[in-house]
Amino acid sequence: MHDLGPLLLALAAILVATKVLGDLAQRYGQPAVLGELIAGVLLGGSVLGIVHANDEVLKAFAELGVLILLFEIGLHTEVRSLRRVGTQATTVALVGVVLPFAGGFFGARAMGFSTVQSLVAGAALTATSIGISARVLRDIGQLDTPEGQIVLGAAVLDDLIGLVILSVVSTVVAGAAITVGGVALTTGLALGFVVAAVVVGSVAVPPLFRFVERLRTSGALGLIALAFALVLATIAEASGSAMIVGALAAGLVLHGTPQRVDIERSVTQLGYFFVPIFFAVVGASVDLGALADRQSLMVGGLLTVIAVIGKLATGWSIRNFKGNRWLIGVAMIPRGEVGLIFAQVGLTTGAIAAGEFGAIMLMVVATTLITPPWLGRVVRRSAAPEPDLSGDGLDDLVGGRRPTPRATQAVVRKHGD
Amino acid sequence: MHDLGPLLLALAAILVATKVLGDLAQRYGQPAVLGELIAGVLLGGSVLGIVHANDEVLKAFAELGVLILLFEIGLHTEVRSLRRVGTQATTVALVGVVLPFAGGFFGARAMGFSTVQSLVAGAALTATSIGISARVLRDIGQLDTPEGQIVLGAAVLDDLIGLVILSVVSTVVAGAAITVGGVALTTGLALGFVVAAVVVGSVAVPPLFRFVERLRTSGALGLIALAFALVLATIAEASGSAMIVGALAAGLVLHGTPQRVDIERSVTQLGYFFVPIFFAVVGASVDLGALADRQSLMVGGLLTVIAVIGKLATGWSIRNFKGNRWLIGVAMIPRGEVGLIFAQVGLTTGAIAAGEFGAIMLMVVATTLITPPWLGRVVRRSAAPEPDLSGDGLDDLVGGRRPTPRATQAVVRKHGD
Repeated sequence: MHDLGPLLLALAAILVATKVLGDLAQRYGQPAVLGELIAGVLLGGSVLGIVHANDEVLKAFAELGVLILLFEIGLHTEVRSLRRVGTQATTVALVGVVLPFAGGFFGARAMGFSTVQSLVAGAALTATSIGISARVLRDIGQLDTPEGQIVLGAAVLDDLIGLVILSVVSTVVAGAAITVGGVALTTGLALGFVVAAVVVGSVAVPPLFRFVERLRTSGALGLIALAFALVLATIAEASGSAMIVGALAAGLVLHGTPQRVDIERSVTQLGYFFVPIFFAVVGASVDLGALADRQSLMVGGLLTVIAVIGKLATGWSIRNFKGNRWLIGVAMIPRGEVGLIFAQVGLTTGAIAAGEFGAIMLMVVATTLITPPWLGRVVRRSAAPEPDLSGDGLDDLVGGRRPTPRATQAVVRKHGD
Repeated sequence: MHDLGPLLLALAAILVATKVLGDLAQRYGQPAVLGELIAGVLLGGSVLGIVHANDEVLKAFAELGVLILLFEIGLHTEVRSLRRVGTQATTVALVGVVLPFAGGFFGARAMGFSTVQSLVAGAALTATSIGISARVLRDIGQLDTPEGQIVLGAAVLDDLIGLVILSVVSTVVAGAAITVGGVALTTGLALGFVVAAVVVGSVAVPPLFRFVERLRTSGALGLIALAFALVLATIAEASGSAMIVGALAAGLVLHGTPQRVDIERSVTQLGYFFVPIFFAVVGASVDLGALADRQSLMVGGLLTVIAVIGKLATGWSIRNFKGNRWLIGVAMIPRGEVGLIFAQVGLTTGAIAAGEFGAIMLMVVATTLITPPWLGRVVRRSAAPEPDLSGDGLDDLVGGRRPTPRATQAVVRKHGD
């Protein structure tokens, strides 16, 4: 037997800290995910050193967590309502990629960075963290609004655009030439996968799950649905798209089946365990030490301002929209793990140095941590009904109407804890 | 991002195969766990090669699975009813260690093996696999009977005795001297931990969980209870006892709290996902190739006969017992992962060669696979009510009475899938 002790203690610490700090966040009117991120920062290498974000096993748990989160969100979402906001989501995605990229590139150039360094900085600003955006929107009960659907669609699209940019920037950093055909192929594969998965899935899945429903083994329906999401995530990555997009597509496909409510209930239960591990590991991967020197702070501060303004503007990029533009703009801000991936690729390929890495990390931390409280404030200002901050979305599922916080709690107790 | 694809596909394959083969097993009147073990053998290196039992991440999932299983079983078990059968469980454990050890040692000597080789063979026969025994008993609805409680207590005890034997045999194999004081210390620590955990836990845990119950985060109660089990498992191992014993002790402690039903429901849901991974990985660690040569088959066959008779006899070792002695004897037979650990330690230290390793593996596979159908037959013969083979134990929890199979299915659907 190898030594499993440290891993079990790390898992136990994550479970306790995310649930306790998540509760604290809610008591102060913040979404639970803010508490989970802070729990990760505290448990990570910068403070307590209990959770090692590079541990292979913890990373696998975290990846499974974000896949389950996106699968849950897909299960909860109608393809039709996403299609209805398609044009608006595309506009928000494109503006939200072009503005931060241009701002980051020219801002970095103006500060004296090289062209390649400026390309990495610009690229790191492009992609909204779909996991964090979607989770915050769900925590504050805004995922099913038109604004929420636009942000979800736009976040998926700019994640795909971000992948294309990542491959282009990697090519440039490696010193190779970019071909228009290559870029077009990458783009086509990434976008084509989602369409193909939803179309093929809608035909093949219902008969499959009529068979699965007949299995008498405990939890079979929900877990085979999860297996379907894992397979689609793997295919998505293999075809040049992102894993989380595959998991989301699996949810969208299963949304239309008669077994949806049962699947959703089962996956939600697993999510209570896995999803906070993802946010804690994102938090633990923050290296507070890299933010310490003055130059990183200054460059990082400027990148953060560009990152916030570039995405905030997306709220005003769509025409004839009667909803809350602040809600869209603020929800697009968090960069989370996607920005970190860009920074890490840049650092390991030698395209950027430790100082610029620290600056990008500061931008990621700042955009991730300001979003939850800011969004909460936007919603409260627009005098929406009391938001459900518990982060499970079960209220819509069970009652059909919005229960009072107390009733929500009772429902969650019955099905959850 | 590192390549997560193969792991996700392995997980998906495990989820689908265990649920489908578990269902098939039930349809043929067998416990679901038999289907899960066979699913593992098929997915493992010997046949399809999709699941690698040595993968660090899969091993962690599997370990978590067996910890959750033992935690569930502890939650379900009253310390009082374990204490009531204490003397009988101790007798069964001692007889079940001494007979197979003596049989294995002298049998191996008679076949011409060296003293050290024979010691390893005897040691590998001693410990019942508590995970497999408890799971089969639960699958066939016999865990709460006096026989089930005796087997549970005896399996825990012989696991602890097995750990002491493992440390003694390792010392002998390494050529060092054994001290009586050292053995006594190991034994004292291993047994003392359980007693200390239950006593201290019963005092400290209720106020702690009155606080936890007030948290509003989704799933907080069940997941913090799980964190408690993981911490106790780590302490158990650090103090020379076994991790699974720590998880069981955590369940026993929480059984007495008012939050027990909520915790049990939440942990059961997680168990649907994690527990089959454990049995699939146990199945996948079987190397069918090692069973191929004739000498391994002969030695393995003899060890299997000794293993079966040695444990079967335990049913008749207790006096004045009016229950089903066959139920106890057969339930003690499976060696599972504990026997494999002995064989692997023996192989890596050079105490035994590949041929003897294959023979021990054959004994482990045979005792593990014959137990589920044999136990099912023992129960049917004694004209017990229709057993619930679904392996979740939710029937006792929800209804209070034993529902018909159809009703059980409906209940499981509602809470589970």
